[in-house]
Amino acid sequence: MTVQASARAVTARSAIMRAAERLYATEGFAGVSIRQIGEAAGQRNKSAVQYHFTSRDELVKAILAEHAEAMEVHRLAMMSRLGEPGAMSPRDRIRCVVLPHIEHHIDLGVPSWYGRFLAQVVVEPALREYAVSVHLERPSLRRLYDATREPGEPDPGRTARREAMTRVLIVHMCAELERDLAAGDTTAVGRDLAAGDATAASAATAWRRLGDDLVTAVCGLLGALRSDPR
Amino acid sequence: MTVQASARAVTARSAIMRAAERLYATEGFAGVSIRQIGEAAGQRNKSAVQYHFTSRDELVKAILAEHAEAMEVHRLAMMSRLGEPGAMSPRDRIRCVVLPHIEHHIDLGVPSWYGRFLAQVVVEPALREYAVSVHLERPSLRRLYDATREPGEPDPGRTARREAMTRVLIVHMCAELERDLAAGDTTAVGRDLAAGDATAASAATAWRRLGDDLVTAVCGLLGALRSDPR
Repeated sequence: MTVQASARAVTARSAIMRAAERLYATEGFAGVSIRQIGEAAGQRNKSAVQYHFTSRDELVKAILAEHAEAMEVHRLAMMSRLGEPGAMSPRDRIRCVVLPHIEHHIDLGVPSWYGRFLAQVVVEPALREYAVSVHLERPSLRRLYDATREPGEPDPGRTARREAMTRVLIVHMCAELERDLAAGDTTAVGRDLAAGDATAASAATAWRRLGDDLVTAVCGLLGALRSDPR
Repeated sequence: MTVQASARAVTARSAIMRAAERLYATEGFAGVSIRQIGEAAGQRNKSAVQYHFTSRDELVKAILAEHAEAMEVHRLAMMSRLGEPGAMSPRDRIRCVVLPHIEHHIDLGVPSWYGRFLAQVVVEPALREYAVSVHLERPSLRRLYDATREPGEPDPGRTARREAMTRVLIVHMCAELERDLAAGDTTAVGRDLAAGDATAASAATAWRRLGDDLVTAVCGLLGALRSDPR
């Protein structure tokens, strides 16, 4: 491939990924064909999506990988500031789990599509296992979760459940705020955001507030489950 | 319609609804056509699903309505035992929110499909608003949530967020346990369930344990958000 052809391929791949996440976020997997994605991405060749990605699932995995990389940059930066997971406060560990999602959404701007896209991927039977294992269980995340496990905790079922609850809250609450912001709905983002005032700054405020609420909620949830005598 | 024809229509509708929730749960909305649902339900007429339900969305709404009714029976029975929501303990109110989902899943047996079906419905753009407003915001549920709101709480955004977090945890954690039970995966249901031992009794135990964990988690989460100075 020449340098120009290679650059064109990168541009086409990127246009297809952006069109796919936007269309899937707003129309659902069942409402969008591979051909519609190619058209929305400005590809004249009807087989462009198959050419660049082979299948819907490979396209989805490429989108997930790109976002996971971007989020990982935020997480590793936070972790290098805060030190080893074992030496962090429980709240700081949860911050490192939750806030990279928030910072990534702030980077994406308004409207974004990734939150609603991810919420659909994690319940899609053909994709959820990939999404959970590769995207949401990065090594950095595993170190954080492992550090929250206490020595006398033998029940693997309950450990898995706590992590699943944390993941479910992050993924689906981010999707809900993204939807509200895209729709210009400000009731769910807090009373100090006046209607129509979804500027980048107030969107960032709404995201950070969600991040704080998620950190507080997850800490409360984990503490309650831990002290439950069961 | 004669009595016999009417009985046949009820049987056909029911067969279509059961086939639809099973196929959607395992293959996703994008993986299943209306015609496949008719075939799986044993309908010879290729237009049977359209005839009985007009569209996919109406079919989905009929399935949701049926389950919502069954769950409401459990909730109203619990509430009549426990008295007015305002007089209940906070934990009992959360029990009345969470446990009807658990009892309904126990009634459905193993394997069931409704949990994974609902998890997909609530993130499907064309269906989620209907699912959230009609299915998950029944009057009984509203009375329970309203009773948890404290007098000096003016922030409607935060109230909506707490309810969304509760809903997200219930819907998606029930879908995860349903998936594990259907797959015979016992690691996530607790260490005292031996592999292959997913009998009705041990499934009921796993569901009740999830119910207890959800009640504890939601109480912890709500308490933490309430005492957060923000």
